[in-house]
Amino acid sequence: MMKDVQGERDLRNIPIDRVGVRNVHYPILVMDPCACTRGESPEQSTIATVSMSVHLPREYRGTHMSRFIETLEEYHGKISPATLQAITRRLRERLEASESTLRFDFPYFVRKRAPVSGSESFMHYEVSLEASSRKVGLTSQEDFDMIVGVGVPVQTLCPCSREISEHGAHNQRAIVSLRVRCSGLVWFEELIRMAEESASSPLFTLLKREDEKYVTEHAYENPKFVEDVVRDLALLLDSEPRIMWYAVSVASSESIHNHDAFAEIVRDKR
Amino acid sequence: MMKDVQGERDLRNIPIDRVGVRNVHYPILVMDPCACTRGESPEQSTIATVSMSVHLPREYRGTHMSRFIETLEEYHGKISPATLQAITRRLRERLEASESTLRFDFPYFVRKRAPVSGSESFMHYEVSLEASSRKVGLTSQEDFDMIVGVGVPVQTLCPCSREISEHGAHNQRAIVSLRVRCSGLVWFEELIRMAEESASSPLFTLLKREDEKYVTEHAYENPKFVEDVVRDLALLLDSEPRIMWYAVSVASSESIHNHDAFAEIVRDKR
Amino acid sequence: MMKDVQGERDLRNIPIDRVGVRNVHYPILVMDPCACTRGESPEQSTIATVSMSVHLPREYRGTHMSRFIETLEEYHGKISPATLQAITRRLRERLEASESTLRFDFPYFVRKRAPVSGSESFMHYEVSLEASSRKVGLTSQEDFDMIVGVGVPVQTLCPCSREISEHGAHNQRAIVSLRVRCSGLVWFEELIRMAEESASSPLFTLLKREDEKYVTEHAYENPKFVEDVVRDLALLLDSEPRIMWYAVSVASSESIHNHDAFAEIVRDKR
Amino acid sequence: MMKDVQGERDLRNIPIDRVGVRNVHYPILVMDPCACTRGESPEQSTIATVSMSVHLPREYRGTHMSRFIETLEEYHGKISPATLQAITRRLRERLEASESTLRFDFPYFVRKRAPVSGSESFMHYEVSLEASSRKVGLTSQEDFDMIVGVGVPVQTLCPCSREISEHGAHNQRAIVSLRVRCSGLVWFEELIRMAEESASSPLFTLLKREDEKYVTEHAYENPKFVEDVVRDLALLLDSEPRIMWYAVSVASSESIHNHDAFAEIVRDKR
Repeated sequence: MMKDVQGERDLRNIPIDRVGVRNVHYPILVMDPCACTRGESPEQSTIATVSMSVHLPREYRGTHMSRFIETLEEYHGKISPATLQAITRRLRERLEASESTLRFDFPYFVRKRAPVSGSESFMHYEVSLEASSRKVGLTSQEDFDMIVGVGVPVQTLCPCSREISEHGAHNQRAIVSLRVRCSGLVWFEELIRMAEESASSPLFTLLKREDEKYVTEHAYENPKFVEDVVRDLALLLDSEPRIMWYAVSVASSESIHNHDAFAEIVRDKR
Repeated sequence: MMKDVQGERDLRNIPIDRVGVRNVHYPILVMDPCACTRGESPEQSTIATVSMSVHLPREYRGTHMSRFIETLEEYHGKISPATLQAITRRLRERLEASESTLRFDFPYFVRKRAPVSGSESFMHYEVSLEASSRKVGLTSQEDFDMIVGVGVPVQTLCPCSREISEHGAHNQRAIVSLRVRCSGLVWFEELIRMAEESASSPLFTLLKREDEKYVTEHAYENPKFVEDVVRDLALLLDSEPRIMWYAVSVASSESIHNHDAFAEIVRDKR
Repeated sequence: MMKDVQGERDLRNIPIDRVGVRNVHYPILVMDPCACTRGESPEQSTIATVSMSVHLPREYRGTHMSRFIETLEEYHGKISPATLQAITRRLRERLEASESTLRFDFPYFVRKRAPVSGSESFMHYEVSLEASSRKVGLTSQEDFDMIVGVGVPVQTLCPCSREISEHGAHNQRAIVSLRVRCSGLVWFEELIRMAEESASSPLFTLLKREDEKYVTEHAYENPKFVEDVVRDLALLLDSEPRIMWYAVSVASSESIHNHDAFAEIVRDKR
Repeated sequence: MMKDVQGERDLRNIPIDRVGVRNVHYPILVMDPCACTRGESPEQSTIATVSMSVHLPREYRGTHMSRFIETLEEYHGKISPATLQAITRRLRERLEASESTLRFDFPYFVRKRAPVSGSESFMHYEVSLEASSRKVGLTSQEDFDMIVGVGVPVQTLCPCSREISEHGAHNQRAIVSLRVRCSGLVWFEELIRMAEESASSPLFTLLKREDEKYVTEHAYENPKFVEDVVRDLALLLDSEPRIMWYAVSVASSESIHNHDAFAEIVRDKR
């Protein structure tokens, strides 16, 4: 029989906060409320970059890395709040750990209509799901925590540039990164909508000429610094009772500079 | 006179944790103890990616982004613990802020001798300096905080693979990411040495055949899981009295998998 | 009616080789022979990064960028040799161009069994499809060209290190990048297999201990320089009659250095 | 004595186009005409990512990778057209090769004055030098080739958006990538200036309010599609007699889309 080197007793007396695997690429299925509404399959196929880890107590030399992948296989890539809780618990059991953490980052697509022509296309967002499970004392109870994240590309149009210039105003692509803890189910689509409403304009994959006119004028009429975007989004998040905690970052790829302007707010409403 | 849009009074009543610029690329000079020893200029020229921000109180609509760059210009890119403290303080003053933060990420080169032939070449590390300054109450006092970081590429050779196989053992490049808070000056070189000693082997830019034999055998005689590297480094950091706090992460680009194994420890010794 | 600025007559007298869109992220369906065999849906859902362009004659000021996205929408993301030919032709027609080019880059997953335990998991490859269509003279004929590409992560184990060392041999992850022009259908799986056979060992997502022993020993018994991998793969490609042209690159993330070793061969067999 | 595995006779009968090292990070010194004018050191310190390779004849199993690094060391990182020619020749000699190629990619900084306030700061460009040397027949003569490249971030302001909208026009950061072959010395600064003149506006690291007004209005008065930028730059390059060949690519990070528009022209004037 082969020796279990990982299972050796460790004498260094140092527990390890997290040990596991990352940069695992894996096909997943996530719930998609829009597909449901269209009468299609209620799930969206996508590709996640996965990170999984456990706490390692001081006594053990190593963890058993293959069990992370085996556990992922057991759930056939079906990712929802319920399966995230199940996977974190299963990882704790299989790896005899007091805590486990998971993170899935993946592209998520939403069908979007151009504002005037109504032309439809897929808009791409990078989203994330983070989950952790921790055993409470010696009981069989657990603390389960989940953070939902969205990365939303938007347009910012500079209020200062608009105010001081004869005509025009510099504008650019910016990225809103939003992570939330919720007391109830919140869809990616809801978070995306809040981020887009807070910017000078949302972006689109397909715009006809009449749409381009609309988007240009709409952004000009809604000038926003990164400071404005982060505050307007904070107001929306403050008024949403299901959201308990949020971290927002807005970074703008300034079209007059070769660097980015950014603003960040983290708030715990509890 | 042009209107100061940023200076407008803001009615949303939301302070912003951090607002500033990032992805600024800028040439800098950092102290280099080895160059000193060689009788060369005591500074190393390199290129930093810079992030700078301040806290923005609820009353103001925006910050004045150009002042970040002006402040950077004032110090001519000379980066040391003393100038980091001066720059964070200056940012607080110029932007009338209670807090400011800075981060410089840059390549740092060390002359390294091959273990047998003694052949010399430059070894590349990615390092970082993070600093923040916070006003204490209504006094002129400040809390100044600094974190020194190094990214050290090393080799890990798998103890399990070695133990169970007739011959050979899988090994690979891994990256040790170490960030520390210190009570006294600690050089990048010292942190790099601790990270390299904790791995199966350090890496080199130039190795002759006799060196390759040495490195191969040395790694085979020092098999380490990522769990071993992170613990052995923790032991070294625990025994160094100047280090008050550390965060260590080791990620190994497994040569038998297409994903990474990782382990992390954060510890506050105070 | 809104002015067609793109359609203006251009007086600079300079044709543009390629004009279009890139970094379009889009969900696609590609044929998957293994899924067919398993009795599942014959297509794999994945996410492509898409580039599309046309030649622009000297007379026109600009192209109509929205038509690229509209054309992509028309085909509902179904990607095969037949649809690639249809899309390139359609782009030429809609944009009144003599030439068009397309490129899709996307992750592709293959179910893979561990060599001893038979444990199954998904293995991730980055693949590509490039296509171009060119009008021949004044006829309705076209030259259609297609290149199939695969990026295959493998292990290389250094023959020199093995030969000169008492025990062990440095090994590491390497990436084989292969692009081919074919006279008949060649599956991604066939190209992946050829790349994996040419290396010291293939990689796996899930390996149990008995598999790790096998892979370690198998790699030790098959030491390969990047020069060996590129030549052994060239031999396989030379002997495959459906392959007319190939470009191979192998880059090895050396576990004793912080840089990569690489080797490249391009060959036209026609 | 240790066996020279690389020097073994190879029986596969396949020459390798290129074999060498890449992703070598190395500190270099490049000539800087502006520093000269300011009476400072005539060289700029920067950090290059280096690729070096040779042709490998069918008889040899491998090349000697350490000699690439040794050759780089011999020139102490001094990079100029003269040293590039010397290094490529030295590589051919040391590695007994008929051909050698080099590529250095590095950040390059230019002091830039804001258009109204005259405020100065460093502007960052990513530039490149590619060189190759090939032995001509059995003589001691060589063909030496060099390509100079610059990556220039600029602003593009959309002519269509401006034309059709009541007010404003979408604009964004774009990158002009230019590579040239010359018959005489051409500085990075000259290529950068041509790229910036072809765009709606250059970018700046430091702009005061009066500069921001100027840049906003200047861009609005110079609307350009990527098609316009690539053609206007082609006109400038056509009229410069020292430039024999060029490849230009312009990619614009559209502020209304989450993808890029691009245009490319390659032209050989000889």
